[in-house]
Amino acid sequence: MLNCRITLKARPTGIPGPEHFSQDTMAVPPLDAGEMLVETMYISIDPAMRSWINGSSGYARGVAIGDVMRAGGIARVLRSQAEGFAVGDLVQGRTGWQSHPVLRGRDTQKLDLALGSLEDWMGPLGTSALTAYFGVRDIGALKPGETFLVSAAAGGVGQIAAQIGLIDACRVIGIAGGSEKCRFLKQTLGLHGVIDYKAETDLATAIQRQCGNGIDVYFDNVGGPTLDAALVNLRTDARVVLCGRISQAAAPEPYGIRNLGVLGGKRITMRNFLVFDYHDRYPEARAWLSAQIRGGRLMQQLHIVDGLESAPRSLGMLFRGENTGKLIIRAAVSPE
Amino acid sequence: MLNCRITLKARPTGIPGPEHFSQDTMAVPPLDAGEMLVETMYISIDPAMRSWINGSSGYARGVAIGDVMRAGGIARVLRSQAEGFAVGDLVQGRTGWQSHPVLRGRDTQKLDLALGSLEDWMGPLGTSALTAYFGVRDIGALKPGETFLVSAAAGGVGQIAAQIGLIDACRVIGIAGGSEKCRFLKQTLGLHGVIDYKAETDLATAIQRQCGNGIDVYFDNVGGPTLDAALVNLRTDARVVLCGRISQAAAPEPYGIRNLGVLGGKRITMRNFLVFDYHDRYPEARAWLSAQIRGGRLMQQLHIVDGLESAPRSLGMLFRGENTGKLIIRAAVSPE
Repeated sequence: MLNCRITLKARPTGIPGPEHFSQDTMAVPPLDAGEMLVETMYISIDPAMRSWINGSSGYARGVAIGDVMRAGGIARVLRSQAEGFAVGDLVQGRTGWQSHPVLRGRDTQKLDLALGSLEDWMGPLGTSALTAYFGVRDIGALKPGETFLVSAAAGGVGQIAAQIGLIDACRVIGIAGGSEKCRFLKQTLGLHGVIDYKAETDLATAIQRQCGNGIDVYFDNVGGPTLDAALVNLRTDARVVLCGRISQAAAPEPYGIRNLGVLGGKRITMRNFLVFDYHDRYPEARAWLSAQIRGGRLMQQLHIVDGLESAPRSLGMLFRGENTGKLIIRAAVSPE
Repeated sequence: MLNCRITLKARPTGIPGPEHFSQDTMAVPPLDAGEMLVETMYISIDPAMRSWINGSSGYARGVAIGDVMRAGGIARVLRSQAEGFAVGDLVQGRTGWQSHPVLRGRDTQKLDLALGSLEDWMGPLGTSALTAYFGVRDIGALKPGETFLVSAAAGGVGQIAAQIGLIDACRVIGIAGGSEKCRFLKQTLGLHGVIDYKAETDLATAIQRQCGNGIDVYFDNVGGPTLDAALVNLRTDARVVLCGRISQAAAPEPYGIRNLGVLGGKRITMRNFLVFDYHDRYPEARAWLSAQIRGGRLMQQLHIVDGLESAPRSLGMLFRGENTGKLIIRAAVSPE
């Protein structure tokens, strides 16, 4: 059996594209004890990948030139030497950008389809959703009635963060680029207010208009000028969840945050975090998220691109704002 | 009796100076119930004053044009209609820049000279010291053995923060401007390392050289490029105490912080705070600080300028880095 692989060819300086990756085919190796051969079904395309291909990301070793591109995904077990995993099992693990990876049992989880569908596991039960859950609940410490601003609110993490805010009875304002995303946030998700940053010349004033007495929690997925515009609108005791900086992924020069000074005397906490640190609490989070999905209070628009070979060109979509919702690759046919 | 007052004449755009203040003399008014007339002995000159005369500071109303300049100080009671205060008592309160203010009993505290001398109350028992105490202990959560970087380490708050780090068995590195301040930090206070930012062309590299495996807690009194240089040297789980931004007080344009991106995946917490929020814990802090003073582990170099009339020109010294240690005005003769 052959494994189709997409490997890193060169490190990008700006937005990554097909020119930074190569495709090849290798024979599937024999399995060692504890390993399983799987067929990749879905692959998650995430902003963090930009830092992985930089060579260093602060928390994970970079992807080496010539190595298979790292990615999380969902797969079906074809052969197993791993205890607890049988042929036909659906699993979640670090598939990478390849069709037939070999996974280790200890790094892989069986999917519990009682919690949600296969696509739920790529969306509102996936790692982006866990990131939103712990970011909003633990880092942001969002409380009912507070004003909650989310940037990249139509994105993978942002959609879930915004809906958690709604479930928690907050006033939720989303920032997104373009009328289509804003319409989705307002009409489909039911946010209290939306800001189309592409249509605003003065984002700080637009935020002020929507957030009334100011922001209690800002969930920042973008960094850069949007963070600066949010800072001037923070209330006393506000929390800033530094989750992502997608606006800076392709910036030739890092944007300088000018408005830290407005924090003076406001008791502001800014924190970033690693979702992996919450590994022991994933079951708690997924049980809650699953209950919200079943109750009709939580959904996620998936942006599905077909074909493993589309992964290299799909990655750049994140940084050009071309996806609405969680971006995933459908790598193989659905299970029978 | 006459009260000599220094009032705000104009709001500065850069470093404040005598041209922004006026001096006048007024008759002392009769006392209402709950009030006392005092004679100002010492006045604290603090970086926060720059924001007060801006008209807004985030946490305190600005000083209005024509009003007496706001300041904390130590005074002796000359007449009292306030319960619990008698003629001759030494008190701490919001004297302002005036020789004979009327204070309200409920805003004023009697000094406990068992805890320290009059000058200790302007230094290592004063508000700057309390700021350092809660900043290091509560906001920074500094632990023994950690690497602790303090900017403006020879200043009012910085000296105390650095010494708390030494008492708590940390590796303490101080940043200051000029060889005199650095010598004081190394030889008198006993810091493990000092960085003269005026002598360094690449502050980030200088910090890296001194901090070895990186910074666990950065106590930031200056903001601007120094904060940026510290950010790239933070360890995983580091805390940044955003205490002051003195480098930005006179900046025509705010400096843009470019290195928030290095926080990615490092679980960094950045917080600012208000010392006044800890009001209920001042006795705890002062008991601890007093024990350290008596044990010879804590001292503070005071930079004393004589004469109330010197206050307007002394304020600018803070922003030009001309003070070594806590800057205070000696407004009147010492008590007999």
